[in-house]
Amino acid sequence: MPQRDVNVGFIGLGHMGKPMARNLLQAGYPLVAHNRSRAAVDDLAREGAQPAASAREVAERADVVITMLPDSPDVELVALGPGGIVEGAREGLVVIDMSTILPRASRDIAARLGDQGVVMLDAPVSGGPQGAQAGTLAIMVGGPRDAFDRCLPILEAMGRKIVHIGGNGQGAMAKLCNQVACVLNLVGVAETLVLARRAGLDLGRVLEAVGAGAGSSWMLANQGPKMAARDFAPGFFIRLQQKDLRLVMAAAEEMNLPLLGTALAQQLFRALEAGGEAELGTQAIIKAVERLAALDRPI
Amino acid sequence: MPQRDVNVGFIGLGHMGKPMARNLLQAGYPLVAHNRSRAAVDDLAREGAQPAASAREVAERADVVITMLPDSPDVELVALGPGGIVEGAREGLVVIDMSTILPRASRDIAARLGDQGVVMLDAPVSGGPQGAQAGTLAIMVGGPRDAFDRCLPILEAMGRKIVHIGGNGQGAMAKLCNQVACVLNLVGVAETLVLARRAGLDLGRVLEAVGAGAGSSWMLANQGPKMAARDFAPGFFIRLQQKDLRLVMAAAEEMNLPLLGTALAQQLFRALEAGGEAELGTQAIIKAVERLAALDRPI
Repeated sequence: MPQRDVNVGFIGLGHMGKPMARNLLQAGYPLVAHNRSRAAVDDLAREGAQPAASAREVAERADVVITMLPDSPDVELVALGPGGIVEGAREGLVVIDMSTILPRASRDIAARLGDQGVVMLDAPVSGGPQGAQAGTLAIMVGGPRDAFDRCLPILEAMGRKIVHIGGNGQGAMAKLCNQVACVLNLVGVAETLVLARRAGLDLGRVLEAVGAGAGSSWMLANQGPKMAARDFAPGFFIRLQQKDLRLVMAAAEEMNLPLLGTALAQQLFRALEAGGEAELGTQAIIKAVERLAALDRPI
Repeated sequence: MPQRDVNVGFIGLGHMGKPMARNLLQAGYPLVAHNRSRAAVDDLAREGAQPAASAREVAERADVVITMLPDSPDVELVALGPGGIVEGAREGLVVIDMSTILPRASRDIAARLGDQGVVMLDAPVSGGPQGAQAGTLAIMVGGPRDAFDRCLPILEAMGRKIVHIGGNGQGAMAKLCNQVACVLNLVGVAETLVLARRAGLDLGRVLEAVGAGAGSSWMLANQGPKMAARDFAPGFFIRLQQKDLRLVMAAAEEMNLPLLGTALAQQLFRALEAGGEAELGTQAIIKAVERLAALDRPI
C-alpha cells in the first residue's frame, strides 16, 4: 500500500472510531491519533499511528482531522474548547466530524471553525461496529461540495457508500433520518419474533423465510439471529441508541413534527433503561416487547 | 421447456395469482385454471391453460390444486362449499393454499380436507406483485413434510426461497409474522422520509445513503422511491394490508399478545381508510404520517 500524502488526525477511538482509524492506517494514510483515555492510542501506535496528547496537537500535525465522539457537547469541547482543534488550527485545515450529533450543533460548530478558516464536514455513519471494521459503512455528508470531493478518498477508506447530502448539518440530519429507519425496523424484528415464538414457530426458519421477502431488512439479517439466540451483547449500546433518539426527537420538536413510531421505539428502549439494561445491545428491545406480554423469562 | 407430468390446478387469478399461474405454465406444468370472474381465465387460456367452470372441476382434473384468494372465508368456500374442491376431490389430491388467512382457519380446512383423504399445505407468500411476476417470492409452508417435498418443484416455479416452517397452519402464522416486519419497516420508511422532507433534505440522496447502512430494508428500496415520488398506485392495496393486520391482531388476541408497533401501523392505515384511500398502495402510509404533522399537501 503506497503512503498517502495527506496527514490525517483522528480523535475518538471508541467502538467505532478505533476500527475506522485502523482502516485509514491500512489504506496508507499517516495518522495522528488522540483519545481521552490513553490505552486505545497506544494500541493504534503499535500499528503505526503517531500518538498526540491533545486535540490541539492533532490539529497542528494533520491536514484533515476526523472526530468520532459520543454526543454534541463532546464535539463542541474537542473542536472549540480549551486544548481543542481550534487552538491548533490553521487556514485550510479540514475537520470531518463523523459523530452523530444535533444538526443545529453541527452547523454552529462549522460556523465557528469557519471563522478561523477551517472547513468542516459533518459525516456520520451507519453500519455499526461490524461495518466500521469491514470498511463498509454508509457515510452521509454535509458541507461544501469541494471539501467533500477532496476528502472522498479518505472517506472511502472507511465506507462503501458515501453520499453528499447537502450543506453543513444535512449529513447530521440524514443520520437522524437513518436512525428512524433503524429503530422501527428493530421494533419490527422484535414483534415478528415475539409473535413467532409465542405461536411456537421455529425462529430460525421464520427469519430465513421473512428475510427473503418484503419483510427483509439489515436489522432482520443482523439482529434477528441475535434476538433468536438471546445474545444481547453490544453491538450498539441501548444507551447510545437513546442518545440518538433524543437527537431525533429534539430535531423533530424544533419542527413541530410528530413521529409516533419513533416515539414508540424510544419508549420501548426506555423500558430497558428502567430495568437497568442500557448497556445491552439494541437487539435487546425484544425484551421490552416480551415484558409487555409477560413473556420476559428466557425460553 | 419439457412438459411436466403433474397436472396443476389454480384457483384465484388476481394481482398475485395470475402471474404465479403464468410462471407455472412457463415452467411446463399443464394448468387448469378457475377464477370467479372469467376474464382472467380467458387471458391464461390464451397462454395455454385449460379453463374450468368451478373449483370442483379444477379438483377433478388436477393432481395439485393451488388457491390464491383474498381471505379465510373465500378459502373455506372454495375448498369446502358447494361446487368446491372437496366435491371434486379424490384420495391423494394435494391442495396448496397460498392465500394469507388465519392459521386457525387453515388448520380447520386442512382437517376437513384430510377427512376426505386430501392433503393440504398452507403456503403463503411475500414479495408482492413484482415478486409474483419475477418468480422470486418467499414462500413459507405449513403441513406434512412429505407433501412439502413432493410439491417443492411446483413452489420453486413461483418462488426463490421456499421454507418449510412446520405443521399445518404454521406457514400461515409465519406469514402473519412476516406482515409485522413489513408494516413496521414501512412505518420506518415513512417517518424517515417525512423527517427528511421537513428538514429540507434531498429525498433521493437520503434513500441512497440510508439504503446502504443499518436502516436498509426491502421496503426502503422498493417503497421508498415511490413515497418520494408521491406515486401511490398499488402495488399492494391498503385494503388488503388491513385484512392481513386484522388476521395478525386476531391471532395475537387469541394468545393475549400485545403488539404496540403493529397496532400503530394498523391505526395509520386506518387513517387512510378514514380518508377514503383504502385502494391506494401501502406506500401511501406516508400520507397518514404527513397528515398528523399537517404536511398533507403535495410538495
